Order: sequence, then C-alpha cells, then structure tokens
Amino acid sequence: MAIKRFILTLLIVVWSLIFADLTVSQAAEALPSWKDGQAKQSIVSFVAKVTKAGSPDFVPTAERIAVFDNDGTLWSEQPMYFQLFFALDRVKALAPQHPEWKTQEPFASLLKGDVKAALAGGEKAIIEIVMATHAGNTTEEFERIVKDWIATAKHPKTGKLYTEMVFQPMLELLTYLRANDFKTFIVSGGGIEFMRPWTEQVYGIPPEQVVGSSIQTKYEVVDGKPVLMRLAKLNFIDDKDGKPVGINQHIGRRPIAAFGNSDGDQQMLEWTQAGSGARFMMLVHHDDAKREWAYGPKSHVGTFSDALMAEARKSGWTVISMKDDWKAIYPSGKK
Amino acid sequence: MAIKRFILTLLIVVWSLIFADLTVSQAAEALPSWKDGQAKQSIVSFVAKVTKAGSPDFVPTAERIAVFDNDGTLWSEQPMYFQLFFALDRVKALAPQHPEWKTQEPFASLLKGDVKAALAGGEKAIIEIVMATHAGNTTEEFERIVKDWIATAKHPKTGKLYTEMVFQPMLELLTYLRANDFKTFIVSGGGIEFMRPWTEQVYGIPPEQVVGSSIQTKYEVVDGKPVLMRLAKLNFIDDKDGKPVGINQHIGRRPIAAFGNSDGDQQMLEWTQAGSGARFMMLVHHDDAKREWAYGPKSHVGTFSDALMAEARKSGWTVISMKDDWKAIYPSGKK
Repeated sequence: MAIKRFILTLLIVVWSLIFADLTVSQAAEALPSWKDGQAKQSIVSFVAKVTKAGSPDFVPTAERIAVFDNDGTLWSEQPMYFQLFFALDRVKALAPQHPEWKTQEPFASLLKGDVKAALAGGEKAIIEIVMATHAGNTTEEFERIVKDWIATAKHPKTGKLYTEMVFQPMLELLTYLRANDFKTFIVSGGGIEFMRPWTEQVYGIPPEQVVGSSIQTKYEVVDGKPVLMRLAKLNFIDDKDGKPVGINQHIGRRPIAAFGNSDGDQQMLEWTQAGSGARFMMLVHHDDAKREWAYGPKSHVGTFSDALMAEARKSGWTVISMKDDWKAIYPSGKK
Repeated sequence: MAIKRFILTLLIVVWSLIFADLTVSQAAEALPSWKDGQAKQSIVSFVAKVTKAGSPDFVPTAERIAVFDNDGTLWSEQPMYFQLFFALDRVKALAPQHPEWKTQEPFASLLKGDVKAALAGGEKAIIEIVMATHAGNTTEEFERIVKDWIATAKHPKTGKLYTEMVFQPMLELLTYLRANDFKTFIVSGGGIEFMRPWTEQVYGIPPEQVVGSSIQTKYEVVDGKPVLMRLAKLNFIDDKDGKPVGINQHIGRRPIAAFGNSDGDQQMLEWTQAGSGARFMMLVHHDDAKREWAYGPKSHVGTFSDALMAEARKSGWTVISMKDDWKAIYPSGKK
C-alpha cells in the first residue's frame, strides 16, 4: 500500500507539471474564434491572474464561479426569445384541446399566424401564453416536450436548429474557464426547465448549474406514482434585480466573473463587481447585422440601453463587439 | 506536443488501474464506524453496482446525485433544532434594541429563560422568532453572524460545539460516496443561509449544493454598494412535500440516493425511489439513549412515525439503528 501511495504521489507531481505547462499554452490556443485585441486580452489576463498561485489576485478553485446570461449572451435572441417560438409551437399543438382559443386573445391572433397582434398585449399576453403552454403537466412530461422540440424545431430566418445558433466564441470561453477550474453557471431570465434538458449537451453546463425563471410545482402521488405537477403560477422571475437574488438562492456564493448582453444583466454584473478581489464583467454587444443582428437601445428584445453602456464604460466592464472581436458567430465554420 | 499527449495518456491509464484497485479496497475500509451487518452491506452493495462499468445498474457519474437531510441525519437535533438555539441567542443579543420584547410574546418568555412557554405558541411563535432574528440584515452580515456563532456556541447538554455533534458514520458515508463520484447535496428543512457558512468545512458540501428553507431577499444599492437585504417574508419551506420541489428547483435531476431520519423526509425518499434504475433510500433511527437520544413517533422534533416505519419496511428502505449499526456517534473517538 505504501508503494502504491508513493507511485500515486509521484504521478500527481508529474501530472501537475505537465498540466501547468499545458495551461500556459492553452491561453493562446483556447479562444481561436476571438480576434487578438483588447477584449480577448482582458479575458486571458483575468484568468491568468486569478489562477496563478502566489499572485495577490489568486482565487481558490472553489470560489471560481462564473455566471452567464443565456439569451443574447450564449445564443441568439432575435427576432424574439427562442423560448417564445417554443411557446407558439405549443399553442398550435395544444389548439385542438382548446377550441375556445379560436376567439380568445392572445391565442386567436397566434393561431392566425399574427404574432405581432398576439404580443400587442405586452407582458400580460406573454404570461398567458407561457402559462397555457408551460404548465398543466408533470416535470417529466415537460422535459420530454422540450427535448423533442429542441431536437427538431428550426429558426424561421436561418433555418438552423436553435442549438446551432449558439455563439462559437462563447463555447470556447466556457471550455477555457472550465479548463482553468471555473465552475460555469447559467443565470437567465428564461425558464429554468426550458433550458435544463439541453444545456449539458450544448454548453457543458449540467442542470444543477442552471438558474432561471420558474413556475411553481406541487408534489402529488398520482396512481401510486410521485410526480411534480407544473402549476400556472409564477414562482420566480430571474431578471434584472432578480438575478443577484437567484444567484444567492442557488449558488450561495458571489461570482467572480459575469457575462451578459442587456439591461437585464446590469444588476448581476454590479453584484459580481461589488465583491472583493479580482473581478471580470463582460457584455456582448450585438452590432453585426451581416452575420447576426444589430440592435441596442431601441430593441424590445435584449435592450442594451445607453445607460448600460455608460455604466459599462464607467465601471471598466469589457464590451464585446460581435462584429470586431469575433472571427465566427456560430459553430461549424459558417459565419 | 505529441510526446506529451502520449505520456499524458499513459499516465491516465496507469492512474485508472491503480485507482480501480483502490476503489475495491476502499469499500471495506471507508466506513470504519459502521458495524458489519445488513445496513452497511446495503450501502456498499448499492455503490458497487451503480459504479461498475458494464453492470445493468451502472449510473454515469453525472447522474450520481445523493441528497441528505441535515437535522437528525447529519447532526443531532435534540432537545430542539440547533438553529433554534441560534435564534434564541440572537434574541438575547438583539434584546437591547427591542425594549418592547420585555412584554411581548414569545420574546418575553424567552428572555426570562422559559423556552417552553415561548414555544407554546407553536409554529406562529417559531416564525416570529425566526423573522426577528434572521431578517433585517444583509446576506453578508448574516453570514458573519452565523460564522461567529457556530465557531463558539456550545450545546447545553453535551458542552460540545454544535459542529462536533455531527455523526461520524455519516461523515464517512459522505466521503465514501464522493470517492465514488457521487455529488452530495444537503436538502434540509433548516435555513439555507444558516447552513451554508459551515457545511463546506464540516461536511465537504459547498454552498451551491445546499438546499433549504429561506426567507426572501431584495437587491438594493446602499451608499453605492449593492447588497441583498434579508426580508421578514417566507420564501420557501423545504420540508415534507417541499423537499422534492426544492430538489427539482435547485438540482433539476432526480437523486439516486436519499438519506433522512423523520417524517419530513418521507416525500424526498419516495421521489428518489420513483426514478428508474437502482435506487437507495435510508432512514437514521434515533434509538440510542445512552450515546445520543432515543425518540420516535412521539417526539415533536424529528418525528419518526409508525406510518413512516411501515412505509420503510414496505418499500425496502434501509433503517439504520444508531445503537446497533454505528460503532461511534460523534467524531474523535468519543461516544
């Protein structure tokens, strides 16, 4: 046993030396879709200083928490949040069981294909659509429905699967952070149970590291089988000042790095920055009309207000130009 | 680089062989405070079958989720929940700022040292005490208060620190499961923010793997500094049918192993068992009046009803006798 322990220790030492060397070369190679420049440099510098043992900015691995918004930060969000496409497809699928929807807004307009009229009812209309399409089943049934949809549904403009519209540079960033012993979390205004069925496969982020908005669930025993029923009642909105609340509730530690793209992420970045020690805050700016979409202060989806831009400048947050900082937008070499 | 990759691969192979061998010998050595017998055997058999590659019961590491109740399962809970001792100490500390408590129940009785009279008000009295002592500060302030208390407060009967009243056999079980690539979570009716400041050090369970009851928090910027204020409003009760709800909300996967000790854990064990594949459910039975406490169906704290015992027998759950199955109760050799 003593000999085995000795060999094990020896292996750990050799392993560590090789791995340390790999880490150095990784920094240059790990972000191939990022153009060399200030944005990429700010990420690499931050990771280098928090991972360097003995550095005044060193952060123990357990504290290396990085949080990512999803819509507009890890995947696209135009012309509307992808979860809303899911909800609209669900309205169509459920319509035969709801003859009353033919005359009842916002469903009537939706079924006629007039999304704009349906959403004219604002937040109230959206909540009605979400409740009608996300509740009334068990957590297992809902997971199956999401998995089937995400595997087949395609974006109306690009014709891609929605999971093909994730940002290649951000996938590289997630992998790079995890290679440096960061624990990566999603903190999104989107539905927690809408994301969990596919985030592990697409982003390498397991269900227990996904924070999002939710409806209430209720434990019931149906025909001798325990189930969680999804109720048509809001539980939590994980957006704006809800994001620090959700982070505290789920993670219980303050992140040292936060990545967002819109006004909904402002408080998450403020909360991250307010901790002690080295911090990194980043916003993705959608300014690439050719390869993705260009939008900002006037967009209803993913609003990036002038006030947010001013705060980013003042607070030293890194603002990524998709046009100038990214060589590729989506995976598989296509631009 | 190619040579380095080759060496790395070689190391991984050697490492795996040594580690596989260690795992086999670990099973016998990892639970020294457990007497040999049916209870210990049921744990070891379960772990062996879900970790054996190629076995029909094999479970991939990502799915190896184990959940543990805290009060009565990982540490003692008599003569009352330890968090209530914390609350009572807080009442005394805060009393100078609350002259009205001298005449106002349940505080008046508490300050006179009459805990029984104070708690005669039942759940309402307890909630009043919790709100008065757990809210009204920031998450950072509360964390500091808990850390100070847990480092110094002592149990009135044993004279031990509360963190010395954790169960040695359960500490070994946590370590054993993690050595077999389980991810261990606490799922407790206790306050999530009361547990997080010390669970990592005491149990090796990080804050992001603690699920518990909570009050609401609110994001505010005070003097330019973002804080989360703790409000005197209930957010979530993680007990009984709240446990599967809390597990789904925080973890988003169904556990394959669940450990509890009272009626409050029944639904958590049912929910765990209702998944497909190999499952393990265990209840700690407090039947050791000499070394700990003996209580059961008639106890107000940690009730283990006859109905729960009947369900355990019927469903094949392992019931641990602290008296017969454990060589030691608390760490450091003391019994």
